[in-house]
Parts: sequence; C-alpha cells; structure tokens
Amino acid sequence: MNAPSQNASTSKAIVADAVRGSLERSSWIRKMFEEGARLKAEHGAENVFDFSLGNPILEPPPEVQEALRGLLTDPQPGLHRYIPNAGLPEVRSFIAGELGGATGLPYTAGHIVLSCGAAGAVNCVLKALLNPGDEVVTFTPYFVEYDFYVANHGGRLVRSPTDDSFQIDLANLEAVVTERTRAVMINSPNNPTGVVYPAERLEALAAFLREASARFGRPIVLISDEPYRQLAFDGVEVPWVPPLYEHTLVIHSHSKDLGLAGERIGYAAVSPHMAECDLLCDALVLANRILGFVNAPALIQRILPLVKGARVDVAYYQAMRDRMLAPLREMGYEMVTPQGAFYLFPKSPIEDDVAFVKAAQAERLLLVPGSGFGGPGHFRISLAVPEDVVDRSLPVFEKVLRQVG
Amino acid sequence: MNAPSQNASTSKAIVADAVRGSLERSSWIRKMFEEGARLKAEHGAENVFDFSLGNPILEPPPEVQEALRGLLTDPQPGLHRYIPNAGLPEVRSFIAGELGGATGLPYTAGHIVLSCGAAGAVNCVLKALLNPGDEVVTFTPYFVEYDFYVANHGGRLVRSPTDDSFQIDLANLEAVVTERTRAVMINSPNNPTGVVYPAERLEALAAFLREASARFGRPIVLISDEPYRQLAFDGVEVPWVPPLYEHTLVIHSHSKDLGLAGERIGYAAVSPHMAECDLLCDALVLANRILGFVNAPALIQRILPLVKGARVDVAYYQAMRDRMLAPLREMGYEMVTPQGAFYLFPKSPIEDDVAFVKAAQAERLLLVPGSGFGGPGHFRISLAVPEDVVDRSLPVFEKVLRQVG
Repeated sequence: MNAPSQNASTSKAIVADAVRGSLERSSWIRKMFEEGARLKAEHGAENVFDFSLGNPILEPPPEVQEALRGLLTDPQPGLHRYIPNAGLPEVRSFIAGELGGATGLPYTAGHIVLSCGAAGAVNCVLKALLNPGDEVVTFTPYFVEYDFYVANHGGRLVRSPTDDSFQIDLANLEAVVTERTRAVMINSPNNPTGVVYPAERLEALAAFLREASARFGRPIVLISDEPYRQLAFDGVEVPWVPPLYEHTLVIHSHSKDLGLAGERIGYAAVSPHMAECDLLCDALVLANRILGFVNAPALIQRILPLVKGARVDVAYYQAMRDRMLAPLREMGYEMVTPQGAFYLFPKSPIEDDVAFVKAAQAERLLLVPGSGFGGPGHFRISLAVPEDVVDRSLPVFEKVLRQVG
Repeated sequence: MNAPSQNASTSKAIVADAVRGSLERSSWIRKMFEEGARLKAEHGAENVFDFSLGNPILEPPPEVQEALRGLLTDPQPGLHRYIPNAGLPEVRSFIAGELGGATGLPYTAGHIVLSCGAAGAVNCVLKALLNPGDEVVTFTPYFVEYDFYVANHGGRLVRSPTDDSFQIDLANLEAVVTERTRAVMINSPNNPTGVVYPAERLEALAAFLREASARFGRPIVLISDEPYRQLAFDGVEVPWVPPLYEHTLVIHSHSKDLGLAGERIGYAAVSPHMAECDLLCDALVLANRILGFVNAPALIQRILPLVKGARVDVAYYQAMRDRMLAPLREMGYEMVTPQGAFYLFPKSPIEDDVAFVKAAQAERLLLVPGSGFGGPGHFRISLAVPEDVVDRSLPVFEKVLRQVG
C-alpha cells in the first residue's frame, strides 16, 4: 500500500468538492424555499400565496387513469419486468408515428429513446454528445438545471442573452459560437419567460447553425427541449424544429401535457437526417443504461399509445395568465405576454430582484427571483396555482409594489 | 467568432469519443445478444435455451397489484405530481423504520433517498462522493456496469480479485488501496457468482477499512450494493453491513424482491454514523435532481409502505439452482454453490470462456462469458428462467461439454 501523499487532492471530507460547492451556491435559494415552508407551517398553507413552484397542477386526463386501470385489472405477465433500455418497441413506434405525422420526416422506432422525463433525456443526450471541454450554448433567461446537466458530462454551458422580448438574438449568439460549440439548446415555450420562438426566428437560427457548422467543419447539434410544447396559448402553434435543421434532437416530457411529472416519462428523438444518426441512437440507448436510468418506467410508458394524444386542459393555464396579466399591468408591473408554458416573468419593480422577492415573502407572497434563471431584474410567477390563490394574491402584489416603489 | 483551430479536439463526429469507444468495446457482447435474438427468430423462442438475462422472472406478489389498484381506484389529487427529490416523506420514514429495525441503528427519513433503482442510487452516490481521479475498489468477478458508473463521475474503478470461493481477499485488497481510494463497493449476494459474504469476512473488511481510513486520514466509504438481499437460499442470513462499519451506504432495489425491475424503484441509505452524514444526504438529494432522475417514480414508491414487506417467492430461484446444480456437476461442470441471487457461475470447461459460450450458442444455448464480468475462465447461467427451459436444456449442456472436451 502506498504511503499517504501530501499532494493528493484528498481531504477528510466525504462529499465531493463540486457537489459541496453546488450545495453552498444554491443555499440562498434553498433558504428561500425553507422560509416559504416555515411561513406555511406558521400561518397555514391557505394563507401563503405560493407562486414559486413549477409543479403542474392539472390532474392527468381521464384517459390516463382508464389506461392505468385497464393495464392493472388483469395484468399481463411481465408487465413490470425489465424492458429494452430504449423503451418498448410499440411505444417507440407510436411516438415515431406521431412525430412523423407532425414533421413530415421519416421517424421510425429506432430514432426514439424513452427516458425518465426531459431531465433524463437531456442528460442522456449530453452524455452521448460531449467530449471534455465541449460547449453548449443556451439563451438567457434559462432553466438553470442546464448548468448542472452540461457539467455532469464534462461540458461547459455558455449563456447567450435574448433580446428585449426574450427572443433569440443571433448577433449575441455569433459572439459565443466557436469551434468548441458542440450544441445549442433551446426551450420553447420557455421556462421562465413563457415565450414561443416563431418559425422565422427558428429558420434564421437554422441558417446560422448550418453556416457555423460548415465554417468549423463539425455539425452543431440543436437540442430542442420541448416539455411545454402542448402548453401554448391564443391558438399559437409551436413550430417544429426538425424540418428546419437536420442535426436536431427533440426532447419531450409528459410531465406537463399529461400531468405526470412525478412519474418521469419523456423521450429523446433523433432526426432521421442527423449526421451519424444510427450511432447517435445507439449512444443514447447506452447512455440511458449506464447513467443508471436503465429504462423509462415500464408501466407508465405503456399508457402512451393507449391515451392517443389526450392532453390536460391547457385553457386552465391560459385563463390563469389572463386572470393575472391585466390586473398586474394595471398596478404597474411590466411584462412580456407569455404565449405558452405556465409562467409570467415580469420586471422587478426594483433593480434587485432578490430584494424584491424577499419583500414579497414578508407578505407571504412566494416568487422566484429572475437571478435564479440568469435573468436578473425580473421575477417568476408560476401559473400552476388554484384560481382562488390568484384572486386573493392580487391585493398583495399591489401592496408589495407600493412598499418597494 | 473565433477562427477554427487546428488543435481543437473537434472532429466531424457527432458522438462523444468516450461513448463511441464504449460502443465499440461492447460490440462483441452485443453481437452475442443479437445472435441470440436471431436464433429465436429462426428457430422459435421455445427452441432456444436463454440463460443470458438477469431479468427477474417472478411476478410481483399480489400485495403489489392490490396496492396499485387501490391507489388508482379513486386516485387522490396530486398522485402523479412532482414529489420531493428525496422521495415522499412517508415512504422514507417507512424504509428508515425497516432499516432501523434490521440494523439497530437510528435511521430516520432524512437518511433515505428514494432512487430510480439501484443503478440510479449508485450513480447518485458516486456523484456525491467522487472528486476527479478518486478510485473505487470492487471485487472481481463483478457487475461490469460499475465501470461505467464510476467513470460517469470522473472516478476510476480498481478491481481486486476474490479468492477461489469468490470471497473477499484482504491481501489483494491491501495491494490496491491507496490515498486515492474514496470507496469500496461490495455486492452480496453477488452478481455473477451468487456468493454471500459471511459476517466474519465483513468484520475483517470493516477492520481493514477503519485502519486504512486512519492511515490515509480520510474515511473510506463502504458502498454495499444489495439488490439481491432478499434472495438468499438455504436459510442463509445476509449480514447487515452498517452495524459493522460506520461509513456505510446501503443501496437497495425492488427489482428482484418485488419483481419491479422495469419500474425503477430503489434507494440509498446513509448510515446515521457516517462522517458528514447530513451533508452527504443533502448531496444525494441534489445528485438525484441534477443527474436528471428528479425523483424516483411517484406512483410505484407509494406502494412500498402498503405492501409491508411482501416479497416474491425466493424458493423458486433456489429450486432452479438445485434443479441445475447436481446434474451439471454430475456431467463434470465445476462451480461454487451459490447462496443467493439467481446465477450459477461455473468454470468454463475450456480456458477460453468466450469460445465456450460461442460453442453453446451454436446449440441454441445462450450463456454469458465470465470475461464480461471480469471473471474469465467462467460463464454465467441465469436462474431467472422457466422450469421447463432448465429441464430441456440439461442434455444440451452435456452435449456442449462433450463437444469442447
């Protein structure tokens, strides 16, 4: 056995340095959530206005419950056994058929990998794509878990600011794309801003990426993270990305559109026109296995072909948006009108969004500071709340605005 | 935008180098499985004797189906929503109670993190523990997914050979433990050998680790991966590790004991006596979130307190062991008697176990070469097969032995 070395990067610590650092850095937002829990314990949950959680409030549509009961009434042998790492063939085929119909591209079962939600899918994709030091660009404000997901696989997340309407700004993108850029990750409808990228912006992005790929002699992959695709308002159609750009991976989740967030079901879909398509599909399946997901939960994935496109009632989130938007604007809050997802992302009435959120918390109004999304000077309101919470909270929003103003 | 650099480690390739390498290295075993699938397609599944899969064959006990039906009959609101990353408080409490009763240690809900199976739990544990370059020691033959799991988090797996009975050999361990050793990972009952580590071996291991931890000034963590704990034969009790060594993490899965392999449900339990216990628990919860598991599937975890320790009928696997052991030995195969899990791990009749497995495959007998488990010169037989497959295969085992002998 070797003698202990003075130089080894070992310490008495048990927890890894990187994770320890992450825990320390996120302690402020954790304290905020703990304070929220404390307020609920002290004042009763009904007296705290909690707009801080992105936990979809709508129950799964009745088709989901019927499909589950049907599977369990007289369960076939092997219902709960291991299934292929990529998912059940009939479920992959069903999804390929849906995507093929929507995009006009020749998706087959082989292009689809069922995953433990979008979070699982993004991790598998990044595992499959990233060499050490590769960069992934995303647009701010953004879902900050991306920082972790990219770092998990040895990459580096690069942030590119959007314009004043939270839309993609190609001049900003141009400034950060280099030969190290392995992928660009978009999220539309967007968390936290609620914006949807229109077709013309996506076409411009595709043209940019095609040119940059040629310039650097390496395809830049476009990862389109679409957990909110079905949650679009005002009749807006969320454009499909794969027909616009060949090297596209679509990530989907049924957390929101089927109200199954706790069950961890989603998928990654490789464009049939992607470079190295077959090898990438194999890589995703391997990643699903070796990252420890093994397979997306078996029982829940079986329901997908059975519910045949049933969805939660998106009108609820749109109604909550409308219930808040006009009154908040009347009070003096400024915000972009979200066209999807279930968030508002107003400007903070004072520059320091963390201070504003703390002031709101003192009035038992729970929000998330935009700084938590790489969007300082703003705050996020989740629309996944009961109606009465919206109504009872409006006077509190006004009170807090007066207090800080 | 920067000009492309000649030196950048970029290529036209889409798939990451490491994953590409893993796919190439595992292509031989994949080809073997594909050949098995081809044989089944050609000759009919009933004419192929498939002992290659570790897919638990026993259906979940009736209590599981009853609990599931009960939850879904009149589903409570929020049944499928996001739950805390660590799991539901009542499920964590239930598991803590079970572990406390079994070990005599003061486990509480805070020590338990529900995970997507043992594979998910091991990945969370390694994420939480490993600094770059840290080493994890395991005993060969071993579950080769450990190589991937450790590499996922920047560590290096170090292999320490067991003795002739597949038991821990402390002299071999001594030779590889250094100041870089962050953890030792054990798996008892063992895949692929079926051995159970008796208490005296574990006590000796604990004494060794305590001494080594003191010598290197850093606790060496013992990761006890126990997906087969409930699958022990001949009345053997699988000893509990946490009472023997303070820095112990227990990993469990309900894939085997509840027949729920496809549903991905398991947990990691931090010993209440672990150094940095609270911080490590926080780190595991963070890891569960940021690796993309988010939470162990919600519906399935709810059943754990409801089925109150129900288990599949282990007698089945013991009966399959006994049904094969004596006849195979009579033919001339040599093997250690497994005391748990559901595998036999006989010596290959010829030195080249891959050649032997190929010869068996030609007779439509599917096995896995020991080389696939860091145990060359052996092969693995899965006992998770129907009775009639065992009976009809025995003449084929004899035929292949005569052919190669």
